[in-house]
Amino acid sequence: MGMREAAPGPQRRATRADVARRAGVSDAVVTYTLNGGAPVARATAERVLQAVADLGYQPNQAARALKSGSAHTLGLILPDGPDPVFENPFFTEFANAVEAAARRRGYALYMTPTPPDQTSVVTRLNDFATRQVDGVLVVPGEGSLDPDVLDRIGIPWLQLNTVHEQVGVDSIGADLLGGAVLATEHLIAHGHRQVAFVGEIDEREPRYRGWLATCERLGVERGPALPSEYNRQSGYAAGLEIAAMDRPPAAVFAASDLIALGVLRALHERGVSVPDDVALVSFDGSWEAEYSWPALTSVRQPIEEMAEASVAAILDRTAPDERRHRMFRGELVLRASCGVHRPA
Amino acid sequence: MGMREAAPGPQRRATRADVARRAGVSDAVVTYTLNGGAPVARATAERVLQAVADLGYQPNQAARALKSGSAHTLGLILPDGPDPVFENPFFTEFANAVEAAARRRGYALYMTPTPPDQTSVVTRLNDFATRQVDGVLVVPGEGSLDPDVLDRIGIPWLQLNTVHEQVGVDSIGADLLGGAVLATEHLIAHGHRQVAFVGEIDEREPRYRGWLATCERLGVERGPALPSEYNRQSGYAAGLEIAAMDRPPAAVFAASDLIALGVLRALHERGVSVPDDVALVSFDGSWEAEYSWPALTSVRQPIEEMAEASVAAILDRTAPDERRHRMFRGELVLRASCGVHRPA
Repeated sequence: MGMREAAPGPQRRATRADVARRAGVSDAVVTYTLNGGAPVARATAERVLQAVADLGYQPNQAARALKSGSAHTLGLILPDGPDPVFENPFFTEFANAVEAAARRRGYALYMTPTPPDQTSVVTRLNDFATRQVDGVLVVPGEGSLDPDVLDRIGIPWLQLNTVHEQVGVDSIGADLLGGAVLATEHLIAHGHRQVAFVGEIDEREPRYRGWLATCERLGVERGPALPSEYNRQSGYAAGLEIAAMDRPPAAVFAASDLIALGVLRALHERGVSVPDDVALVSFDGSWEAEYSWPALTSVRQPIEEMAEASVAAILDRTAPDERRHRMFRGELVLRASCGVHRPA
Repeated sequence: MGMREAAPGPQRRATRADVARRAGVSDAVVTYTLNGGAPVARATAERVLQAVADLGYQPNQAARALKSGSAHTLGLILPDGPDPVFENPFFTEFANAVEAAARRRGYALYMTPTPPDQTSVVTRLNDFATRQVDGVLVVPGEGSLDPDVLDRIGIPWLQLNTVHEQVGVDSIGADLLGGAVLATEHLIAHGHRQVAFVGEIDEREPRYRGWLATCERLGVERGPALPSEYNRQSGYAAGLEIAAMDRPPAAVFAASDLIALGVLRALHERGVSVPDDVALVSFDGSWEAEYSWPALTSVRQPIEEMAEASVAAILDRTAPDERRHRMFRGELVLRASCGVHRPA
């Protein structure tokens, strides 16, 4: 039987039923194959897709979304600033985990880097809303978003990577303060009586506060606090400063992996040995931290757990007065940059 | 004037004209603010978005897409396999460049990691097609896609990161063979009389072929060829093998940055110095290569140029018989891993 004879004439568009008949499956199997929702055997899926191609069938998602109001899709808005978001392995690893979590729930994930200002985020949220996307996860850039403005768009949204929780906002974030305490305590446990900090120097920044409070609590000298943005270049500049000091600190807590990678490079270049001359612990625990030299001891953010929780929270949306912040504890992953661990 | 009075009654949905009137701008400015296409002053945009929020205006993109057939959006399908695609800094950097290129043309980009088999790609392409996405860029995983099946979906598509060009397929790829020649020649120019290879050992793989041909042409001993997948772990295993050799090769060409990072880690661990004991050159030139220790000399893929060309090609789509492969030359970026460059 030739393909031409079997196809409906040009006067009629192929329907889902036509595809099902040609592939010898039920209508539901056609739907599952094209949209997910239930597993379809590989051979069956291939038969369905062949029938779709043969008949030129186009399930009109726009029309269907108009009717059902759902496209079984989540959106992920990532902040695109002077530092490209994907330059940071923490964000790429997070995006990857969110995609996997969405897929396990039968949802596709459309990611879109967006300038971090509120106007751009609102524009993109509107764009997703009008495409019947079911919910949007927003990783905010600098500055906070006005939840009232975002709520009025009428699409469920949730804030990821949240540093400062806000009343009435569903959000997810790591316990940054607790992580900084872990990192600083660990350096002190190695016997260092002075710990320096490289990162955002701001009394409201939890990593800065955790470092400060731990040094004070344990009676250890606060090493210098060197300002750095969350990127490699800025960490590199801070590392050069450290290497040039008359009496460099013997221990450094870096507020992110990227900062630590920059510090590492600078110390290597200046012949300062890590961990022998300077012990280093960082924050994030991303892929790149494992393959630096020496490998970084780092507070690992519980990325998979946070991704899972964020997808669950957006799909099982609660009433506005039940919205809340969910905080997740990281764990210290011991590698080489903090010094040798001797058996007790 | 209170908000309530100004809003249209619940019996009528707010229109674009209502928004324009309230914000004191033209209808076109409302469109530009919400969908891009022309710059809008920040203060004006905020006024428009405030009016959108006040009136609860929802421009129905699904309805509009049905009418116009265009949503001013491109899709990017990335291969998600056993190695998460975003673990590879080359792909994240490429995705970032494509997003920037799309934005310059006034298009949003929705990225979606997808299992690399043809069935999954076809499903996702269908999904984009039915949302009136204007075109889709596909980074294929292992195995080649059948262009006939993809063409029948009826959405413009283009293949990125192409190793093997196919007749009738619009595609973009780097000159892998030429890059491997550059890398191998450079190691030989450092005086090495033997160059090893770590990567995919396959006569059809252009990087393997480039290394092989250059060794033969310049009469240099082919060092061992060690198999490696394109990830850090596999490069690490190859690096351990190299370190354990009685007579390790003095020069190594690694077929990707990730492989080289794994090799580096293994050599560090075994006390083999790069570049003094083993000179190393890699391929890709991604962000991570710059901050490894030592920093990697690498053949940099012209990512921005390829991204720009891919967006242009998909938007200025040519007839099927004019489709073609576009190949881009990389450049050798000299850093420390290949050895000291002395002034001539």
